This record gives sequence, C-alpha cells and structure tokens, in this order.
Amino acid sequence: MATPQFKELRRSYGFDEVAIVPGDITANPDHTNIDFKIDNYTFSMPIIAAAMDAVTDVNFATLMSQLGGLAVLNLEGAQTRYDNPEEVLTEIAQASGAEVTPLLQNIYSQPIKEHLIGERIQSIKKSGAVCAVSVAPANTKQFAPIAAEAGADIFVVQSTVTTACHISKSYRGLIFSELRESIPIPIIVGNCVSYSACLELMRTGISGVLVGVGPGAACTTRQVLGIGVPQVTATMDCAAARDEYLRESGRYVPIITDGGISNGGDLCKAFASGADAVMLGSIFAQAEEAPGLGYHWGMSHPHPALPRGTRIKVGTTVTLEQILFGPTSVTDGSQNLVGALRTAMGACGALTIQEMHRVEMIIAPSITTEGKSWQRLQS
Amino acid sequence: MATPQFKELRRSYGFDEVAIVPGDITANPDHTNIDFKIDNYTFSMPIIAAAMDAVTDVNFATLMSQLGGLAVLNLEGAQTRYDNPEEVLTEIAQASGAEVTPLLQNIYSQPIKEHLIGERIQSIKKSGAVCAVSVAPANTKQFAPIAAEAGADIFVVQSTVTTACHISKSYRGLIFSELRESIPIPIIVGNCVSYSACLELMRTGISGVLVGVGPGAACTTRQVLGIGVPQVTATMDCAAARDEYLRESGRYVPIITDGGISNGGDLCKAFASGADAVMLGSIFAQAEEAPGLGYHWGMSHPHPALPRGTRIKVGTTVTLEQILFGPTSVTDGSQNLVGALRTAMGACGALTIQEMHRVEMIIAPSITTEGKSWQRLQS
Amino acid sequence: MATPQFKELRRSYGFDEVAIVPGDITANPDHTNIDFKIDNYTFSMPIIAAAMDAVTDVNFATLMSQLGGLAVLNLEGAQTRYDNPEEVLTEIAQASGAEVTPLLQNIYSQPIKEHLIGERIQSIKKSGAVCAVSVAPANTKQFAPIAAEAGADIFVVQSTVTTACHISKSYRGLIFSELRESIPIPIIVGNCVSYSACLELMRTGISGVLVGVGPGAACTTRQVLGIGVPQVTATMDCAAARDEYLRESGRYVPIITDGGISNGGDLCKAFASGADAVMLGSIFAQAEEAPGLGYHWGMSHPHPALPRGTRIKVGTTVTLEQILFGPTSVTDGSQNLVGALRTAMGACGALTIQEMHRVEMIIAPSITTEGKSWQRLQS
Amino acid sequence: MATPQFKELRRSYGFDEVAIVPGDITANPDHTNIDFKIDNYTFSMPIIAAAMDAVTDVNFATLMSQLGGLAVLNLEGAQTRYDNPEEVLTEIAQASGAEVTPLLQNIYSQPIKEHLIGERIQSIKKSGAVCAVSVAPANTKQFAPIAAEAGADIFVVQSTVTTACHISKSYRGLIFSELRESIPIPIIVGNCVSYSACLELMRTGISGVLVGVGPGAACTTRQVLGIGVPQVTATMDCAAARDEYLRESGRYVPIITDGGISNGGDLCKAFASGADAVMLGSIFAQAEEAPGLGYHWGMSHPHPALPRGTRIKVGTTVTLEQILFGPTSVTDGSQNLVGALRTAMGACGALTIQEMHRVEMIIAPSITTEGKSWQRLQS
Repeated sequence: MATPQFKELRRSYGFDEVAIVPGDITANPDHTNIDFKIDNYTFSMPIIAAAMDAVTDVNFATLMSQLGGLAVLNLEGAQTRYDNPEEVLTEIAQASGAEVTPLLQNIYSQPIKEHLIGERIQSIKKSGAVCAVSVAPANTKQFAPIAAEAGADIFVVQSTVTTACHISKSYRGLIFSELRESIPIPIIVGNCVSYSACLELMRTGISGVLVGVGPGAACTTRQVLGIGVPQVTATMDCAAARDEYLRESGRYVPIITDGGISNGGDLCKAFASGADAVMLGSIFAQAEEAPGLGYHWGMSHPHPALPRGTRIKVGTTVTLEQILFGPTSVTDGSQNLVGALRTAMGACGALTIQEMHRVEMIIAPSITTEGKSWQRLQS
Repeated sequence: MATPQFKELRRSYGFDEVAIVPGDITANPDHTNIDFKIDNYTFSMPIIAAAMDAVTDVNFATLMSQLGGLAVLNLEGAQTRYDNPEEVLTEIAQASGAEVTPLLQNIYSQPIKEHLIGERIQSIKKSGAVCAVSVAPANTKQFAPIAAEAGADIFVVQSTVTTACHISKSYRGLIFSELRESIPIPIIVGNCVSYSACLELMRTGISGVLVGVGPGAACTTRQVLGIGVPQVTATMDCAAARDEYLRESGRYVPIITDGGISNGGDLCKAFASGADAVMLGSIFAQAEEAPGLGYHWGMSHPHPALPRGTRIKVGTTVTLEQILFGPTSVTDGSQNLVGALRTAMGACGALTIQEMHRVEMIIAPSITTEGKSWQRLQS
Repeated sequence: MATPQFKELRRSYGFDEVAIVPGDITANPDHTNIDFKIDNYTFSMPIIAAAMDAVTDVNFATLMSQLGGLAVLNLEGAQTRYDNPEEVLTEIAQASGAEVTPLLQNIYSQPIKEHLIGERIQSIKKSGAVCAVSVAPANTKQFAPIAAEAGADIFVVQSTVTTACHISKSYRGLIFSELRESIPIPIIVGNCVSYSACLELMRTGISGVLVGVGPGAACTTRQVLGIGVPQVTATMDCAAARDEYLRESGRYVPIITDGGISNGGDLCKAFASGADAVMLGSIFAQAEEAPGLGYHWGMSHPHPALPRGTRIKVGTTVTLEQILFGPTSVTDGSQNLVGALRTAMGACGALTIQEMHRVEMIIAPSITTEGKSWQRLQS
Repeated sequence: MATPQFKELRRSYGFDEVAIVPGDITANPDHTNIDFKIDNYTFSMPIIAAAMDAVTDVNFATLMSQLGGLAVLNLEGAQTRYDNPEEVLTEIAQASGAEVTPLLQNIYSQPIKEHLIGERIQSIKKSGAVCAVSVAPANTKQFAPIAAEAGADIFVVQSTVTTACHISKSYRGLIFSELRESIPIPIIVGNCVSYSACLELMRTGISGVLVGVGPGAACTTRQVLGIGVPQVTATMDCAAARDEYLRESGRYVPIITDGGISNGGDLCKAFASGADAVMLGSIFAQAEEAPGLGYHWGMSHPHPALPRGTRIKVGTTVTLEQILFGPTSVTDGSQNLVGALRTAMGACGALTIQEMHRVEMIIAPSITTEGKSWQRLQS
C-alpha cells in the first residue's frame, strides 16, 4: 500500500546553512547606502538593539541613536520594575547557573511601576535620541497611552508569537487597528515567522514587523514548546509577505530580523534573505556599555511557570562603536558589523539594502562542520 | 549506462529535525481542550506512562490516574515475577554498567507468578484508578483472561513489532478479532510504525495503536537489528492510517506515540504529527515516585540471547505532578509538560488536539546543532 | 544567467543513514532460511570472513567453515610471506601508532613464497573446510594455477577497484573469461560499486561479486584518493545489476557486501539493500580466534608509496561462535549476528534472504546523532 | 495561504560531501597524463603553490618549477615590504594566538618597496624557473608594468572576489582588456565562484581563472561576511563557464581551484569537479622548504579594519618533493599528492585531466561523520 501524506513538511534554513554568492559585478563598499526607514524616521544603519534587559537601558538607547541606529527599551523589564535596576542586574550576573532561573523568576515577578515608564522615556528623549519602547500584547492597552504621552517615538508590541487575531473566551484580544488610532506613533509588532501571519499583521496598518521565533542565543522555546522557524526561511517568508502587501496596498512595511544573528556573516545573510533591518541581542550584550555585565538572557526566560531561556555568558569585549564600526583585530565576525555589511554588499555589487535583497544565496554545509576540518589541521 | 533504482528510499524525520510553525491566529492556552478518549474512557490529558519497570508500578499507576492520565503496568516485568519487586529494582539501580545487562537477563528469566497478576491489578483498582496492563503477544492467550477477570480496564498487547498477522510453522499466531471476543475490555496494540501495518491492525477491531519502533531513549533496536522509524514520520504515517480507517469504517481509533519524547518540544511535535496521545518512559522515570530509582531501561533490554537496550541514568528530579503541571525553574523542557502543550497549542491557535494535528511543521536543523553555536558564545 | 549543470551528483547512502521498516506481517525467526549459494556450494549462513591478515588464517578459515560460513585466505599477506606469520602479527600488534605503517610497509615488502600458498590451502582442506583464497589481479595469472592445483575451492580476485577491462600500455590486463577457462573453480571478483561495472563483471562469467570501495573501518581510500561509495547505495546499485544480469542471462550471480559493517544493524541493512552475503573484517577481528590479536588493518594499508589504511584497535571480546550465534550480554549489536539477522527478518515477515531484499528501508537521521540525545539524559 | 518563494536557494557541495565513483574500466596510473597548460606554458603537473607568505618565496617558487609545477609570489606581502622577510615571518610564527592578528595588521601596513618587486622576480628568473606573481586589483595598474619589465612570466590579479566590472564613484575600476594590452604576458584572474562571473572574466581575454571564495583553511570570510561557495559547486559552475566560453570563442581558458584542498582526496575531487589545476596553500605550508615555519595564514587576514583569517599551525612534515611525489608512510592523504591523483585517475579509467572531468561523483555523507564510527571501534 502506498502511504498517503498526512502533512507536508517544508525544508527550512538557518544562517549556518546558507552562504551568499558574490555578484557578477562588484562595488566600492564606501558607496553603499544602508539607510533604514520606519514611517518618517530614517536611520543611517539598519541595526536595532533588542528590547532585552542585558542590552538596552537609557544610556545604551542614547548611544545607539547617536551612532545612527535605534534601541528598544523593554517597559516590562528591570528598568520599570526597579528604581535602581543596576542592583538586580548585578545580582543576575553574580548568580550561579543553578540559582539564576529562580532568581530571574523572582526579580521579574515584582510589579511594574508606572511612573518609571515615563521617567525612562523622558531620560532617553532628553538626550536627543529617538525613543522606542516595547510592551507585551497583554499590557499594551494599559501602557501604550502612558508611553505615548511620555514622548516615545516608536511603540513595539512584542511577545514570542503575536498575531493579528487572538482567541480568548475571557478577555478581548488586542486589535492593532484600534491601537493605531489610540496612539499617534509608528507601531512595530512581533514576533512572527510565516507569510500569512506577517501579511495579516501588515494589513492591520502597523509600521514594521519583527521576524523570528525561537532562534535567539538565549532562547529555548523550540526545546520547551517545539515551536520555531530558522531565520533565513522566516525572513524570506516574511519578505514575500512584505512584497505582496506592497503590491496590494502600495505601502512598504519593513521587516526586522530579530534573533539568531551571532556574527557579521549572519547579519549579511539576514539582508540577503530580505530583511530591512536586524535586531541584535547577544552581540550587543558584549559591548562595554551593555547593562548585562557580560551576561545575556531572554525576556521569556523568567516566565513563572514555564521559563524558556538560558543565561549565557557573552563576556565584555569592546565599545558599542567598535562592535558596529571597528576597527578590529578579531577575525570571528563579532566586530565591525557595519564594515562587514558594506564589504559584503560591495562583493555582491549591491549599492542599497534593496539590491542586497536580490543577491543569490546557496545552501551550503554549515560553518560548524567546516570548522572541524580546520581544527584537524591545528591539532 | 543509467542505473536502475533497486529500491526507493523515502526520507523520514525524527523530533529533532522538525519544528512547529506558529499559527496565523493565537489562542489563550487556558481554553485549550486536551482530552483523550479510548472507547468509553476519557482522560483529561493525553499522556500515558509506559509499561516499563522503571516507570509504572501500582503506586505510579494510581497517581497518574488521579492526575488525569493513564499508566500501563507491564505484566511480564518485575511486578509479577517478584513478591517484593523493590528489591530487584534496587539491585538494578546499584549494579555497575558492566554488570547490569547480565543482571537484567537473570532477573527477567525468573517465572511470572500468575497470582501476582491479579493482586497488582486489584491494588490499582482498589485506589479507584483506571487500570491498564500490558502483555507480549506470546503470552496474551494465557494472561488476558486472568487480567480481565481481575478487573483490568484496558488491555495492551505490546512487543517491539506487532502486526495483524504472524507467520509461524510451529504455533498459531494471536488473532486480535478473537482476543476482542474473549475479553470485554478495550485492547490497545503495538508497536507499529507504518501506514499499512497500522491500518491492518485497526481493521481487526482494536481500540488503539501504539506507534514507535526504535526511538526510545533506552532502546538499541536500530543498532542491533537495523530496524526503526523516526517518530515524526511513524506518527504521521499511522495518523494517515487512522484517518483512512475513519473514512472506511466511521470509527476513530486513536494512535499513541510511544518512545523518543525527551522534552516538551518533542511532546508538542508528536501531537502536531498526528498523535492522539503520547506514552512517556524516560521522562517519567525522573519522577520522585518512579520505581526506577533514577534509572531507566527498556523492556527488550533483558532478552536472554539478543538484548537490545541500555540502562540510562536519568536522575530523580521532582514529583510527577510537577513534571506534568509545573511550575518549574528548569528551562530544558523536561518539566511542566501539560503547560508546554497548552502554550504551544495557544501559539498555534489550536483549541483541541485535533486542531493541533493540522498545524504546520517544517524541517529544521536539529536543536543539537544549534546548541553548538550557543556553546561557542558561552565559552 | 542560469547556471548550466556541469555534472549530476546523485545522493548516496551509508548504513548509518538508513533504517529498515518492519513489515505488515511478522514471522517466527526460527523459520527463516538464510542459506547462501555460490555455484554448487551452499552455506548455511550468508557471512564470509574477509581476506585480511587480522581475520583469516588457516585456523579461522576452518572454524568459519565448521560454523556454516566461509573465510577467504589472502595469498598475498603474512600467511604466504612468512613461515611463522604469528611472529609478524605479534610485531604489528605491539608496534606504536607512529611505527605501524612503516612496519607494515616493510613486512609486506617481503617476497611471497609460492610453496606456502600450497601449504596453507592444503591445511585448510585437510580440516574438511571449503577453502577460498584471494589474490590481486596483477598476481592472478601466476598464483591462480598454484591455488587451484593445491585444492582451493573458490578463487577470489580482489583489489580496491577491479573492472572487467584494464587499460595499460605496458602489460596485458587480466581477462576473466580466460581465467575461468584456466581454473575449474568458482571465481569471485571485486571490489566494485556501480551498476555498470558490476554488470560488465558478471558478463565475463564469474560466480560472484564483492561490493564496496572505501567504507571499511580500517580503510582511508576516500581520504587519500577521494574515491568511495557508501555501502547502501553501492549494494543497491550492484543488486540492480545482478537482477538485470539474471534477466538477460538467466544466471543468478550473488553479490557480497564487503566493508563498513560494524554491527548487526548494518548487517541487516546490507541484506535489505540487496546483498546475498556479507564479508566482515573488523567485527571478526574481535574474535578470540582472530589472528590479529585485537587489532585490525586493511590490506591496502601497507602500499609502499601510498598507504591507504589505518590500524585500529578492536579488542578481543568473545569466541567467533558467540559473535555469530550468541548468546550475549552486550547490547551494541556486535554479537549474535545470525540471531540479529533472523530477528530482523522475522520483524519484516521475510522468510528468505530474497524476501529480505524486498523489505522497505527509509532514510533516517544517523544513529550517531540520536546517540547524543541519549548522552544528554545520561550526563 | 500558500507561501510564495522569495528566493531560490540552490544546494551546493564541498569536498567533504562528495566522493568519486570508480570507473567501468580501470587504467594503469603510470600511463596517465596530468599536464597543465596556460597559454604557451606547459607544466608537468597541474598543481600551483598559492600566493601566500607562508607558502611561496623565491626559493619555494624555484623548487616548484623544478618539480614541474608553478608557484605564485605575492607582490603585496612580506617579500616586497621587507628586505629580510625571514625576520617578520619568524615573528609571526612566534607570536601567541592573541597577539598574531594585531601583529599581522602591523606587518602588512608597512609600505611595499618597488625595488623589491624587481629583485624578487629576477631572483626567481635567475634560477631558470617560470615566474608567476600576484597583485590585488587596486595595485595592478601600478605594479603590473614593473613586474612585466622585471621578467615575470605570468601575472595574477587576485582578491577575495574579482569581477570583470567594478562600480565606484571615486575611481575607475581595472579593465582587464586594457591590462592585457599593457603587459605582454598571460593574465590569471580571481577569485570567482559563479558561472556568470567566470564567463564574463573569460570574455575579457584573460588566460586563466582562480576559483574559490571562502573555503581556505585559514580563511574566515564566510563567518565575517557570510560570503562563500563550497568548492565542488564553485568548480563545477566555473567549469560549465569554461566549456560555454570554449563553445562561443574556440578558446580554452583553464580554471584553477584555489582553497579548501586539505588532502589527496580533495585534490582528486577538484579535478573530477572540472578543475584544470589546483592551487594549494595549507598543504604546502607543511613543507620543510615553506617560509611559514609550520604556520599558515590567509592574505586577507591582515586587513586593518576587518581581518578575515586565522593563523593555523600546520606543522612542518617532509620535503615538498615528498608531499608531491612520496613515498610516504602517512595514510591521511597529506603526502604523495601526484601519486594519489594518478592512482585515482587509474581507478576511474581516466588517462587525462579532461577525462577525469567526466568521471562520476556522488553526494556522500562526510568523512568526518564516518570517522566517528571508526573512533567508536578504537575506544
């Protein structure tokens, strides 16, 4: 008997499994344009710091803005639960591996202080920076007006998986078209990973989509829930949604690849997969200015009943400026990310991010595997 | 010369190679329905404890039933060969790695005491629990009437591979339609892994099928015999058989994925592959109440001439209730399995197990491989 | 520009990448027939000991024959170069890793003593065993008549790659049809791995083909020369040639899978891939009676200018009889190979080797990969 | 909703993933012809030493020419920046892992001395060797006339990615048709990896193409930039371009696979992939005569702002002559490369490199993976 197919399983790809093919013409890296736009905001580089407590605080957000990018402050993390968040961040950094999850669960079970939401936003604004903040869908109705009133420029609604429609018998889900009318600033929503979910989100009128479920360095969602899509496929599918939405609406909604980028190579591949910008966590946690003190953890890590994360030691290396622009003497792709992007674009003859969307990629054996043969030579 | 194809090799998939794609809509996990039915029995969770000596004894079966699930007592293990099985279970736990297989071979060569079959069943029944018991095909004609008479509610016929038809010159194989007539209780049969074998089993009128050959954590069948099918493919193929049998007969025979589930992620993927329930061994062997004392071994391990298993140290972690319902501070997916299932269903917008059968899955690089890049960051 | 395809690359498979799917019916293992025939010789098991110095000497050949199988004595190894081969075998076992290749190169550079060819063959014949001997193509014209005259029953012409046609400006290649006329005994030729090469060999009128280039445990041909075909694909392709040759000639020429079988699972998969028999090296080198003293090395290892092998320590475990027939307490598939084959055939409902050729196999993630998740549980 | 495809991802292959299938006929290795031609130069072996400071200096170039091959001297490395390059090469060899990249950045920031260009070339020519030199595109206009005038026989223009057309607003890119007219010697250009880029380069009238971006043992381009194509696919695609260019122009432009070849197996596969010659770095760095003193590093390693390489310890083993022609007692494929090539050609029945282009290759599980099962046997 022939076996009928119960379900089709499509092959998906992560960064490690693909590589960029250089172009038929090359270009001078200095002439590449890597601007990134959300509504009326234009940034001189398409790189965003993640809404994670190990990465973005007021100071880091200010610095990112000064360097031409954007950082997102998490309004449900340590910064709004504690007057002096440095204390709990130090505790987290000093906890042993066995202690850290219960400690995080305890730290993040303390109440959010609404007055701190306003204060943090005002501190960022005072520096002259563009201020982006994030809230989970459940708290959005409560906190969005506070944030908008305090002067936030961009509002991010973010949870592990966010869709245009949420079913519940006990409460009314968040309606993004209503949220758009209630606050007058651009709204970015995430995370999502599929063509149809992304397209539905765009149809609600939002200004940007975060792409990525499961791939982050500090995330164990796939192990705990079985859910996740590798970032190359997720980005390509959401890029297809963006292009389809552009065709049907005339509006270009950028997609931001969030999670799983661990070096310049991954970053370049995200753009070759169709990303308009990338959101970085663990790489920025290595910056001297990062509040995580050399550690990094996910924001779904502290869930009280089903934590899904791991605290990783990333170390503290160099300044944020060097991570972004170099120069560097490390050769593993963790520094001079903007230089790497421009160089890769040059090698592909891509003068803009949108030209970079069209370069060829191939499926290739993972770097990890190749690495083994290098090690053989070194032993 | 072109090479003719001697045989077609279909690609199969295990849990580590797939991931669930979140849905276009999401749902509140609290509103998901995860009931599981076998004939007239309804359980409030679709999780069954395996018929393995390291997992199920009278006490564990009672507890599983109280928590809403089911456990299967093996009628050919230590529980029916020894008046005080705790003694030999302790011996197994204390044996060195080199001693353990000969010790198991010796322990399981002792005769089964028929009076213990009745006593164990009655103890389980006395607690108010639903009582399920298992026997290998060769002993079914002898033990099934004893078990039914003692009050067993569900009868499981289980061996590494069980089919609707067994060829032998020297004895008459077990005929399931006859067995059904001889005992008035639901019969579950396993294990099987293919569409056609599963369909033939269902056509004998049985009430459930166990799916899985080779994947268990303590099983070396594939290494010893070359036989085995990874669980995602096995489950999908048997789900296709279930659906075909439903079309041809109008009767819904549930399939139970048995083996290879090592965390919440695997469990969720089993349901996304089409399972109606899952049977767990090594995860439950970690419970404080498990009789294996922190060890786990397969029931084909003690074969006198061709043992196919390995004793693994799983450790003792928390109570069965916490493994099933949390809360937890571990982030590797080994605890709060019901919470993980409901959360994953919510992320997929699946309100019932049957809706979970229809969610999208993708082929993705294995978690193990991804893990390496995390470790690079941590070193 | 679309890229034209320079060359098609077909996917091939090794033992680790496939698994056998159990059948829709099962059979009693005791009733399986595993006879193997070469011309008029019938063996009660389809297992042959390799023509390697670590495996086959006079004593081992005698024992294999008594147990129902066959062993091949290499006429160009230590047995015919040394009156007391035990001395050099001991030297090899005692050499350090750095010394062993030069030592082998020296040992195998000593001349072959023609009188020892006759003596070894006569010793085997005296025991009542079927005597099979092997020679490389270059020496066949010289040694074949000596071997036939001394009473050899089966003549094996074996080199890394042997074809029906060899091009040389300086000498006339071996013509198998001529060889068949010059010696009146069955001729087995190898090794080959492709459909067309195997078919051409069969058309020369020989009686059996050895299948396998590169996969042996002690072979580095693929690393040194880039040449090799994984054994599942090689066996399937040669099985297709055997079936085609049967159609065109009416003659059934068995194929013998040689190399890469490291446990019972691999052995069963070889038959499911179409093998009529298997040739074992490293597994048999573990027998108490093996002349290799717990070590194993390939016969192309000692090449004077381009050695292609490695000496591996396999250890000495149990008797040959236990390796073949058990019983055993090891669970890794290295013992009770005949029991494993019969059990697998039973699980597939295959009563003969030819029925075993028709069972389903699937492509599955490698056992090695699965092993990792077991280890996670054990740590 | 069905997901539209944003971008097609073609599967590519590296050396480790393929294997050569032996032929239907075999040939005597002694009769194989492995000549390699560039314009009017004919070399008796198709092997070129890389333009890397750890490999080629005046002495090494002389020796390679005497042995029948070719070496390329890098005109932008230590040899033209330092009167006594041995001093800095010793410094590099003695630096610690942490110091080496900054040290390389400093060493290679010193100015190139034009008079040394002439002197090095004349030293090579004085020995009677064919002299090949390399320069990056940016310096080609300046150094090419100097090199030609000093007597260089072959001029190589090499950078990570070189195309027929380079876009820059600030300077005029190198035009190869102009370069050809300005110097009267054969020009080899690289590196490239795709059909179309290679074809465009050939159409400029150059005499050879270097193939390979990213695969070298000491290169981290793929990690830093995400760019790279595994060598089997890169070579096959460029071979298709060569064949197309031959059809359209009647001119045969050889392709040289450069990078990623770590043993004889890889080398043989390069030719089976369509290469006319191979360029070796890390293997030759192991020669007693290599200037790298047992170390190897890439020439894009010392980039001042974005270094993309790693220094690897390759060790010093035997003479260059033994690496090329043996005899040897190592069995890992790192020595007797010419013997390996001729032996592989014999096993494939290929009498010339062009016949070797037509042999069958298969996709096979990587040697690395196979290695694991050997190690299991050895533990």
